[in-house]
Amino acid sequence: MERITIIGTGLIGTSIALALRESSPKSEILGFDANPAESAAAYSLGALHAALRDQESALASAARANIIVLAVPVFAILDWMPRLAAVTKPGQLVTDTGSTKLQITHAAQKLFTETTAAFLPGHPMAGKESGGAALAEAALFRDAMWLFTPAHAPEPPAAARWRSLVLGFGARTTDLDADRHDRLCAWVSHMPQMVSTAVSALLQDEFGDDPALRAIGGRALREMTRLGASPYSMWRDVALSNTAPLADTLSAVEQRLAHLRENLRTPELRTEFRKANRFRATPDAKPDKKPKAKRSTKPSA
Amino acid sequence: MERITIIGTGLIGTSIALALRESSPKSEILGFDANPAESAAAYSLGALHAALRDQESALASAARANIIVLAVPVFAILDWMPRLAAVTKPGQLVTDTGSTKLQITHAAQKLFTETTAAFLPGHPMAGKESGGAALAEAALFRDAMWLFTPAHAPEPPAAARWRSLVLGFGARTTDLDADRHDRLCAWVSHMPQMVSTAVSALLQDEFGDDPALRAIGGRALREMTRLGASPYSMWRDVALSNTAPLADTLSAVEQRLAHLRENLRTPELRTEFRKANRFRATPDAKPDKKPKAKRSTKPSA
Repeated sequence: MERITIIGTGLIGTSIALALRESSPKSEILGFDANPAESAAAYSLGALHAALRDQESALASAARANIIVLAVPVFAILDWMPRLAAVTKPGQLVTDTGSTKLQITHAAQKLFTETTAAFLPGHPMAGKESGGAALAEAALFRDAMWLFTPAHAPEPPAAARWRSLVLGFGARTTDLDADRHDRLCAWVSHMPQMVSTAVSALLQDEFGDDPALRAIGGRALREMTRLGASPYSMWRDVALSNTAPLADTLSAVEQRLAHLRENLRTPELRTEFRKANRFRATPDAKPDKKPKAKRSTKPSA
Repeated sequence: MERITIIGTGLIGTSIALALRESSPKSEILGFDANPAESAAAYSLGALHAALRDQESALASAARANIIVLAVPVFAILDWMPRLAAVTKPGQLVTDTGSTKLQITHAAQKLFTETTAAFLPGHPMAGKESGGAALAEAALFRDAMWLFTPAHAPEPPAAARWRSLVLGFGARTTDLDADRHDRLCAWVSHMPQMVSTAVSALLQDEFGDDPALRAIGGRALREMTRLGASPYSMWRDVALSNTAPLADTLSAVEQRLAHLRENLRTPELRTEFRKANRFRATPDAKPDKKPKAKRSTKPSA
């Protein structure tokens, strides 16, 4: 029987627990959350065999677990790491789901040695704009990319079991360098989040609760502002732990928007649309769920 | 029997034809498109009783129609308006689906008089990132907002029939001033389009066909760039006919992004997330298709 301790039973931690219950029904899954309502919700959903009461019970459970999963924001992960290094031993695995990987991977190299558990830094590219155990789903990671940024080479044997469990969730996995991870994620995840937050905050200031905007807004507005609902508690840690790459992408977007704005009445607008069309014409690595209808290539009427 | 002539059988024109076939099966629907492949596609889909061969047949058909629908880009609408004013007479209605309404509404006031057809400017807030008859659906306007910016008061009686047909498509309708329409649509539709185009073009320049970006990108990236696929042919007319309001919204977004970027490491980031959260917490006027799950209000672990 496998024992798994999950620290942080919000959306991601509870979804991992639910996915484990499906793919590895004999595992024993214990969970802790600093907010007892979250671990109680995860328990009520049937995700956990037990909700751990406090940090001490979480550490005691971690000391006996085969795999410990840190599913909390980045700085909370960095706080837990030395405490887990102190109570674990070789043969155990600690892994995490933090959104930025450079600081965590460096900390893993320093704290996790041949006298402690192994540490495999991870990052599932999955989530929702709102957090919390109540929104958790076993299928959250199906077809999603789960990135690893290995801290040690050769890979400690305990990591293999977690990799196979992750594949069992229906995720695809890729290994990459932590620095490259953080720069790529600034583009694909952190920048879209901050653009959505900035646009939503701007619209809140401009329109407040004026119903006109929402009454006429369609899918374009909803999609552009969906991530505006995302929690500060998680994104503060991303902004603090990936500041320079994120600031670079935001600066590039600002300049590109200014360029487009200055060319609303020039042929350069056509160039921008053609480039954007080309970006969207390249198929996503992840297969689209909906079949693509044939496109007309000529302008209409 | 009602005769309806649709000029422009792309996504919107053909969807209108399909919706009419469902809600008003006795109508006779003729369609013209400057690209014969589009009117042929609309005809093959069963949207049209006949595809009109050329502009002359389109005008001849318009002269005999009860309702003429202009479903082409804004400047093509402005081109068709004087030609339709010349061949129509009282009792007929001309309407349009253009994305900006100020120039069209002014032209309608000048060109359509008591000796011509009536003109009711309209704008369905519906669409897809790719155009073309092949993507048309009778259900495209279901639950969508269809805006009108009346050019004449009191409303010409011929307009009532079109309003009731639009309600029959499942759309909701609202009347507003053309100037206010264009300023609101700059926020809810034109700005999201240009942000998506700018971000997509930027990513194309930065990453080209590098598969890494798409391999790890999830829903955030897909949604932020979905409208990057939109056709220049339509948006050029929006940019040209709504330049100042659109430039104002883009400028405001640029400033807001810079503000957020300068505050990635300060408590002001929290204020921006709180405002964005508040924007998203106000329910959309259009009911969400998915039920909202209960949100956890406390940060996790």
